[in-house]
Amino acid sequence: MELWLVDRHTDDLKVALRVQRTLFRRQSAYQLVEVVETAGFGRALLLDGVLQITEAEEFCYHEMLVHVPLGFHPRPERVLIVGGGDAGALREVLKHEEVREVDLVEIDQVVIEATRECFPRLAAAFDHPKVRLHVADGAQFIRERRDAYDVILVDSTDPGGPSLPLFTEEFYGRCREALRPEGVLSAQSDSPLFTAEVVRQTYRRLRAVGFPIVEVYVSDAPFYALGPWAFVIGSLRHDPRRVLPERVAGLRTRYYNPEVHRACFALPNFVRDLLSG
Amino acid sequence: MELWLVDRHTDDLKVALRVQRTLFRRQSAYQLVEVVETAGFGRALLLDGVLQITEAEEFCYHEMLVHVPLGFHPRPERVLIVGGGDAGALREVLKHEEVREVDLVEIDQVVIEATRECFPRLAAAFDHPKVRLHVADGAQFIRERRDAYDVILVDSTDPGGPSLPLFTEEFYGRCREALRPEGVLSAQSDSPLFTAEVVRQTYRRLRAVGFPIVEVYVSDAPFYALGPWAFVIGSLRHDPRRVLPERVAGLRTRYYNPEVHRACFALPNFVRDLLSG
Repeated sequence: MELWLVDRHTDDLKVALRVQRTLFRRQSAYQLVEVVETAGFGRALLLDGVLQITEAEEFCYHEMLVHVPLGFHPRPERVLIVGGGDAGALREVLKHEEVREVDLVEIDQVVIEATRECFPRLAAAFDHPKVRLHVADGAQFIRERRDAYDVILVDSTDPGGPSLPLFTEEFYGRCREALRPEGVLSAQSDSPLFTAEVVRQTYRRLRAVGFPIVEVYVSDAPFYALGPWAFVIGSLRHDPRRVLPERVAGLRTRYYNPEVHRACFALPNFVRDLLSG
Repeated sequence: MELWLVDRHTDDLKVALRVQRTLFRRQSAYQLVEVVETAGFGRALLLDGVLQITEAEEFCYHEMLVHVPLGFHPRPERVLIVGGGDAGALREVLKHEEVREVDLVEIDQVVIEATRECFPRLAAAFDHPKVRLHVADGAQFIRERRDAYDVILVDSTDPGGPSLPLFTEEFYGRCREALRPEGVLSAQSDSPLFTAEVVRQTYRRLRAVGFPIVEVYVSDAPFYALGPWAFVIGSLRHDPRRVLPERVAGLRTRYYNPEVHRACFALPNFVRDLLSG
């Protein structure tokens, strides 16, 4: 028998990965959390049947989520990750020596358990002395923070279920208040080809809550979405396109580099159009 | 009953599109040629069961195959397209008024018939007065040309079957001889994530046959490959990164623009590594 993990991207499009066996399967209060061993791409994490990461290609998404905002902020000492219970973004944040403290706020304890049991190399980041792990609702957590962070990374699932509050104007406004004066918010914003409305709304909402600089950038998230993946940055002072060479020199990365940093802000016309429309 | 077109990218990865009906199905001397109406992405062309284009997203691939080489060549008057029987690359070439003649060499008459029957808007380009359509083997065709073209575009299927000769050092050497002194060759070169060897070999072979400037660029080909898609350019004189604003001003495109042109040469580290290794 061949087992295939079938990930339904839209009603009309599916991506399927051949699977050797299931390693973890637990229903949490929020979602069904599963880990499988794929045939070609290492282990994969699924939430409610939707593929989140594979060991083979998660570096593309996580490096670009993290190193772009951290690459242009001059002193990213305090970082908040909302979501990110797979610890991939956390691993990348910890590559920056300037970072002194990282809060990671994951709503679902079971995701953290799955990471600890099945992705030990990723989970190692949880135990780093700079890290404080919070099992909490990110939308609630952010309300109690003022002037607290240099960088906030929203590493959510696609809009829906527990992540829905993380796509609202209210949430982005709270994030803005939780940022220090030179702060930066970066949020994964789905596929401009298949779910263009998420990109457009995130862009508009970051502007609506008063970020003076809002930019979209695109990269690859191979098993998340066919075609480009979008992120939206809100910056209170610094130009996201101006990578600081001294901040990123010596980073050990497989995707990100300063040239890619500058290039990722070059948007295809169809992405530009959906922002201006 | 739900019908799904299942495209096997690798032994361990499949992409499936929901299909409404089959419009064309004919076995040629070279391959099985099929066109289906998909549920979400317009019509799709398949060769031996491998997805080639969908109406919804072919613009990404065709614009980047064509406008990058034509965007830095100062006078692209004579253009050769090898393959490209779906006429998508041809449509893009004809957007450049400087182009005076285009030879399109498609080995398989049945692909042209499928395009004429099922993609009439694409097929319109076949009948443009600047176009000469040749049903012939591109590898043979190129042998009889010397100093003939400003730009050669290799719009082949993935290596295998009839396209295999289009990936050889011999073929690239013949292309070089068929180019004028300022000539440019651009070839689609598969996925650096899944079939890295194709990118590496094409890069090495273009250097081996004496192109003084060889550059790789990456873009999106959403249903061809998850993650980035690679093209390799061999240039006899001009720097591929230096887009000429006057050459591309006024192009009506949905993906390509001068900023994207410059950005597409910024390679992720894992792509750089496979070229230097």
